Amino acid sequence: MSVTNAPKELFKPLQLPLRILTGPGPSNCSQRVLDALKQQVLGHLHPEILQLMDDIKAGLRYAFQTVNRLTLAVSASAHVAMEAAIGNVLERDEKLLVVKAGLWGERAADMAQRIGIHVDFFHVEPGVAFKLEDFEEAVKRHRPAAVFVAHSESSTCLVQPVEGLGEICHKYDALLIVDTVASLGAEPFFADAWGVDVVYTGSQKVLGAPPGITPMSFSPLAEKKIRSRKTPVHSFNWDMTWLGRYWNCFEAENGPRPYHHTISATLVYGLREALALLAEEGLEASWARHHAVKAKFHEALAKRGYGFYVEQPRHRLATVSSILLPAGVDAPSLIAFAKDRYNVEISGGLGPTAGKVVRIGLMGVNATPGHVDLVLRALEEGVKHVKDRTISSA
Amino acid sequence: MSVTNAPKELFKPLQLPLRILTGPGPSNCSQRVLDALKQQVLGHLHPEILQLMDDIKAGLRYAFQTVNRLTLAVSASAHVAMEAAIGNVLERDEKLLVVKAGLWGERAADMAQRIGIHVDFFHVEPGVAFKLEDFEEAVKRHRPAAVFVAHSESSTCLVQPVEGLGEICHKYDALLIVDTVASLGAEPFFADAWGVDVVYTGSQKVLGAPPGITPMSFSPLAEKKIRSRKTPVHSFNWDMTWLGRYWNCFEAENGPRPYHHTISATLVYGLREALALLAEEGLEASWARHHAVKAKFHEALAKRGYGFYVEQPRHRLATVSSILLPAGVDAPSLIAFAKDRYNVEISGGLGPTAGKVVRIGLMGVNATPGHVDLVLRALEEGVKHVKDRTISSA
Repeated sequence: MSVTNAPKELFKPLQLPLRILTGPGPSNCSQRVLDALKQQVLGHLHPEILQLMDDIKAGLRYAFQTVNRLTLAVSASAHVAMEAAIGNVLERDEKLLVVKAGLWGERAADMAQRIGIHVDFFHVEPGVAFKLEDFEEAVKRHRPAAVFVAHSESSTCLVQPVEGLGEICHKYDALLIVDTVASLGAEPFFADAWGVDVVYTGSQKVLGAPPGITPMSFSPLAEKKIRSRKTPVHSFNWDMTWLGRYWNCFEAENGPRPYHHTISATLVYGLREALALLAEEGLEASWARHHAVKAKFHEALAKRGYGFYVEQPRHRLATVSSILLPAGVDAPSLIAFAKDRYNVEISGGLGPTAGKVVRIGLMGVNATPGHVDLVLRALEEGVKHVKDRTISSA
Repeated sequence: MSVTNAPKELFKPLQLPLRILTGPGPSNCSQRVLDALKQQVLGHLHPEILQLMDDIKAGLRYAFQTVNRLTLAVSASAHVAMEAAIGNVLERDEKLLVVKAGLWGERAADMAQRIGIHVDFFHVEPGVAFKLEDFEEAVKRHRPAAVFVAHSESSTCLVQPVEGLGEICHKYDALLIVDTVASLGAEPFFADAWGVDVVYTGSQKVLGAPPGITPMSFSPLAEKKIRSRKTPVHSFNWDMTWLGRYWNCFEAENGPRPYHHTISATLVYGLREALALLAEEGLEASWARHHAVKAKFHEALAKRGYGFYVEQPRHRLATVSSILLPAGVDAPSLIAFAKDRYNVEISGGLGPTAGKVVRIGLMGVNATPGHVDLVLRALEEGVKHVKDRTISSA
């Protein structure tokens, strides 16, 4: 049988721009992380990889502020961690209460419904933090088996206070699932002290590793729920009884690490180094740095007359900001200008903020005063450019 | 609230061995692939990433020998591609016929059952290729909506001829799903000419990219089945109507590429470069190289008196060989010797071959005559070492 010709496009050399990733993520990786990525791969059960997985577990317990033994990273994007969180602690026909405050709640609901979980919504105003008493009212009314909340709703750029939610959930026998994809490492977070049962974050935001490997942690209560399931988790790939054994989470009960899947050594290297950098900087120093950068950025924006989608300053996320589009300025033109002139990424809105804002992210290695100055310049000149163009074409 | 101390293990510098990965996979990456991995990340919708995704689609159509428009890579391991293959073309309560010839059939069945698909087995003798007439008999008896077959059953190291299976499946209105994780690029494979409806392979075997991104392709018939589903795919993450749009597979019907998930730029770089290397070598040259290496290796083994788990030489996989353990030699001792003395990976058996064989993989950049000599030396000395030790301790 004859073989088709090799495709021409693959004969072009790989050429990539060095872009400053100041959108909602991924953020740039540090040079140390990039240096780790180029190391030759190793097997998924080689002792050196298992050691790095142990390092990662320790680093994640620190980052999440937890002693949960079932702490690990899934070999996929944060969207998969969302599915794994819901799919492990809930069974078919159980009820999930979703706080619908932006895109993440919608996606969580979609994922849950696909595996036969019943979804109720706690509808809240996008960009506004909900109140504990309203939350309790919703949990009391719906009596879910679990509740989904985004700590960092990066579609609106709200940071939702999580303290107190765990207590309410547990009062009504519900588990608390929290998405910290765009906040962990930048916003204070205490998984254990706040009674969080399942939490996950993104590798490619504050932590500054490449995407494709996603940190998660399950409380003893969540683990108990998983162990008492009557039906298997819907996916072999995200079944925490398998993954926990592979990550050697179960102490005396663990047994030998099984062959579950081929973990990406490359991404293990990157995440391990990213967590090493966080450990070296210190969690509190990282929180303080991100908050100082946010303060500088937001003060400068306010001084220049920009408005924010999230009105309450203390509920504005430290990592990603949703800045209202000035009158007469469209997001695509502004985004194109920043990219073409400054090689800087600015992003449009998403979900409830689509067409209303631009989103700028300053996190990980990009959370520096110099980056604040750079994105401000790109934004200011971009707005001027788009306005001038609009006037001259009118 | 006070923060716990940063974990000490993360203050150790990252130190990795350079191991020769001659187990069943992952195989080593080429220097060109490793160089690509260290490039700074880019966003999941940046034009440069979208261009590389287009390059990958072209490269995969070539590698699979298909013109399928729905050709892409999922952002996870090959186990996820297995789940995505089954979960997209089948709905709850439909029937999957699984050829049970080793571990992969078992895992496919597990994944299918978890999402409510009924599984029937076509039991075949491990290590022996089944016959077309027996296959037809099984399809006729069970009348499944789809059939799962491993082209490369790497647990036994059998290559199962696929030609003719598509015709039989289609005669009985079944779709044909083929796992080529350990064969694509080494064993001749013609997805279109052989009537394969869903096929996937591993990035980390013959192709020589890191694990974590997995090539897949769906025939027009498979696509039609997906489009006529009455229920949504069980996972948002692997729903091909979403992923196909993100990968811009649907031509005029595609619409703008949506934000589905954050693809790992790092792994996109690696897979693109791996496919570029395949295009440069040429598919037929790669097949010939792997077969020449297998011939040299197997002749040398036979001359030294080793036996093979797969008796029929032409059904022995070109990439990974299952070599019967000589009397008195245990796999763990042999594996430890090869690793400690030669830094060479030899692997034990898996599933039906566990405890009976060692598996040695020569694929991708490791499919060279020099690697044959190296693994032979490690094997020969290892066997001698283990036997001597056994005698001296007797």
